Amino acid sequence: MKIIPLTEDVSLKRSIDQGTEEQRKAVSEIVTTVRQEGDKALQQFTEKFDGVRVSDLLVTNEEITKAYETVSEETIEIIREARDNIRDFHARQVQQSWMTTAANGTILGQKVTPLDAVGVYVPGGRAAYPSTILMNVVPAQVAGVERVVMTSPPQKDGTLNDVVLVTANELGVKEIYKVGGAQAIAALAYGTETITAVDKIVGPGNIFVALAKQQVFGTVAIDMIAGPSEIVVLADASANPEYVAADLLSQAEHDPMASAVLVTTDAHVAEAVAEEVKKQLETLPKREIAQASMDDYGAIYIATSLSEAVDAVNELAPEHLEVVVEDPWAVLPLIRHAGAIFLGEYSSEPVGDYFAGPNHVLPTNGTARFSSPLTVEDFTKKSSIISYSKAAVKQHGEKISAFARLEGLEAHARAIDYRLKEK
Amino acid sequence: MKIIPLTEDVSLKRSIDQGTEEQRKAVSEIVTTVRQEGDKALQQFTEKFDGVRVSDLLVTNEEITKAYETVSEETIEIIREARDNIRDFHARQVQQSWMTTAANGTILGQKVTPLDAVGVYVPGGRAAYPSTILMNVVPAQVAGVERVVMTSPPQKDGTLNDVVLVTANELGVKEIYKVGGAQAIAALAYGTETITAVDKIVGPGNIFVALAKQQVFGTVAIDMIAGPSEIVVLADASANPEYVAADLLSQAEHDPMASAVLVTTDAHVAEAVAEEVKKQLETLPKREIAQASMDDYGAIYIATSLSEAVDAVNELAPEHLEVVVEDPWAVLPLIRHAGAIFLGEYSSEPVGDYFAGPNHVLPTNGTARFSSPLTVEDFTKKSSIISYSKAAVKQHGEKISAFARLEGLEAHARAIDYRLKEK
Repeated sequence: MKIIPLTEDVSLKRSIDQGTEEQRKAVSEIVTTVRQEGDKALQQFTEKFDGVRVSDLLVTNEEITKAYETVSEETIEIIREARDNIRDFHARQVQQSWMTTAANGTILGQKVTPLDAVGVYVPGGRAAYPSTILMNVVPAQVAGVERVVMTSPPQKDGTLNDVVLVTANELGVKEIYKVGGAQAIAALAYGTETITAVDKIVGPGNIFVALAKQQVFGTVAIDMIAGPSEIVVLADASANPEYVAADLLSQAEHDPMASAVLVTTDAHVAEAVAEEVKKQLETLPKREIAQASMDDYGAIYIATSLSEAVDAVNELAPEHLEVVVEDPWAVLPLIRHAGAIFLGEYSSEPVGDYFAGPNHVLPTNGTARFSSPLTVEDFTKKSSIISYSKAAVKQHGEKISAFARLEGLEAHARAIDYRLKEK
Repeated sequence: MKIIPLTEDVSLKRSIDQGTEEQRKAVSEIVTTVRQEGDKALQQFTEKFDGVRVSDLLVTNEEITKAYETVSEETIEIIREARDNIRDFHARQVQQSWMTTAANGTILGQKVTPLDAVGVYVPGGRAAYPSTILMNVVPAQVAGVERVVMTSPPQKDGTLNDVVLVTANELGVKEIYKVGGAQAIAALAYGTETITAVDKIVGPGNIFVALAKQQVFGTVAIDMIAGPSEIVVLADASANPEYVAADLLSQAEHDPMASAVLVTTDAHVAEAVAEEVKKQLETLPKREIAQASMDDYGAIYIATSLSEAVDAVNELAPEHLEVVVEDPWAVLPLIRHAGAIFLGEYSSEPVGDYFAGPNHVLPTNGTARFSSPLTVEDFTKKSSIISYSKAAVKQHGEKISAFARLEGLEAHARAIDYRLKEK
């Protein structure tokens, strides 16, 4: 890893795959075809892209039962415990509708309503990602969304991964469709004979899924389009280089474009971490990916003071931030921009990826400056409530009319005037 | 207005100006030029589009003082009272950071942080829109945003509208720039010598402003791209046709593409409202606009029951909904999709546009299915807090490693394992 003295121009090297013109065109065609031809198009695209003909898109109870045969009781117990932790944390995010009343009869308020229907996209590929299901489905359920639908591309044999099915079932998800890619996103946005359209689509995916989500945005809501994963570790002399290196590598193994950065006030820690990264890389199964990430996007910055280091962290606005200093809680109030903040040397990032409870869907690419982790609120919307009594209109009506006329909106003013003329 | 029996296929006719290819290209060039050339480009575009050379973009104290000379004390008092009402309502939306602790030393939480800097775009044109300033600036200030900047296109004499300046000053906005259009949005997103970049841009504008906001989205956050205004009135036999007609027209006068729709269970009310609309239109200053809106986007639907009418309202998911029935509070729980809900015949929509307190920036174009009014939360972001103790890692670490391995992420698992091996 490069060791660099911290200058004012600190920045995370970041790349986001925006897709090629060709990919955008391909996605646009898929979306249009699914919108026009429904299930037939879903089956054709699935045959083309996933190499399997799926006659029935909906996962059956038999398939779920069968999936349990291959998943160990121990694994199921871990999934359940993670689920319960995630539920417990997100339950604390639930917002109440509220109102305020005034003696003149005015009632104002804010009504919180869960979305009607949400679609969760779960990527396919060789590995199963039960944590994706937990992190996207649980907040929707906690929000009170009645219909939570899942889609995932089928494997070559036409089934979904057993762990995926078991995790979905442990959450009580009843509607699971064996369809992936841009065609799944189109189906969720516009509906087909089998799949009723939803109001919001969440969950990660490849570039085709991301481009499809961008294209249907507006017809439905979408979550963020996530960039490659990022970690910044803020460390002083007290940090354990072995832990720091391991945590940097845990992000680096995700993606050759993932960013793993150390900002430290201690030159010895910088060197020891660089050494440890080298050593730990040697035996890592995803060594090539992690090595590429470290070479191209990794860096160790040396700051001359903790305050300078904190400024750098805020400048970077990372997705994940670990604060590994003697008194991490003293640093917390100074952190302005980070998706998730891990405090102290035992708060290794994987603790938050799977188990602790907070969401692992976090703002990437510097958007922690203005974006938040996925929350229960993302699965609700608000309506303002305004109830004015006759007395309230009599009391304030003339001011409201005058304001409307100030903006040149006479019909607005008259709507109030009609109410004022009545005794 | 057309009177139509309610069928299952109820829909608001809606149009959104997406801009032409030419407009998108023009905006893209403006944004690029401002990004490269800074203030110089701002001045050139202002000369070109606003027909005035503005040497100093920043509004001076002298300009503010002068603005007060032409605005009446009465107007200022109304603006202040509206400001206080809006502040009071939005103060109730403020969220607290929170945490939860467990006996094993785990601390989890959510930190709420205001955005660093927000830019509010205020449209120019013949009329002044002080309500736009109030509704966009107040929630940002209540959220705790330290730097709230305003931009607005200069008038032909190089100044801003006096009411705009007075309103901004009554809110304590110190940074006001005389620049509008796509060039203002580019300056807010990328910064120039004079204007430091912000983190989020809010406020309405013409198609050039909307397209520029779309183009800078990602670099900064933006609010919604608003479509034409919409109102749906849900009325039974108890409704006063004069009031209903006036409220429909108050939306129609905004825009020839605005939608004003009545859904009623009473055929007599339907006819009486149609009659009243005709009558009230005759003397309206913006008669042509309102007439065009009513002809092209207006409709009166007759429902056979209140329940059918409510279903139609939810299907329409309007920006503004007035519930003018005998017992509006009995209907409220049934309303799932509406930006703002006005209850009872005295809750005329203009009450909410200017004065009552709730925000008038509301989801249009059916997005009330999944979007909310502008809130204080839109000017904050959250960070998750995760602090695991040594004891907590010892207790749960093996499960976390196992979960990581389930997903094929060995470096994640090892990051935990390193902590477990220590006594």
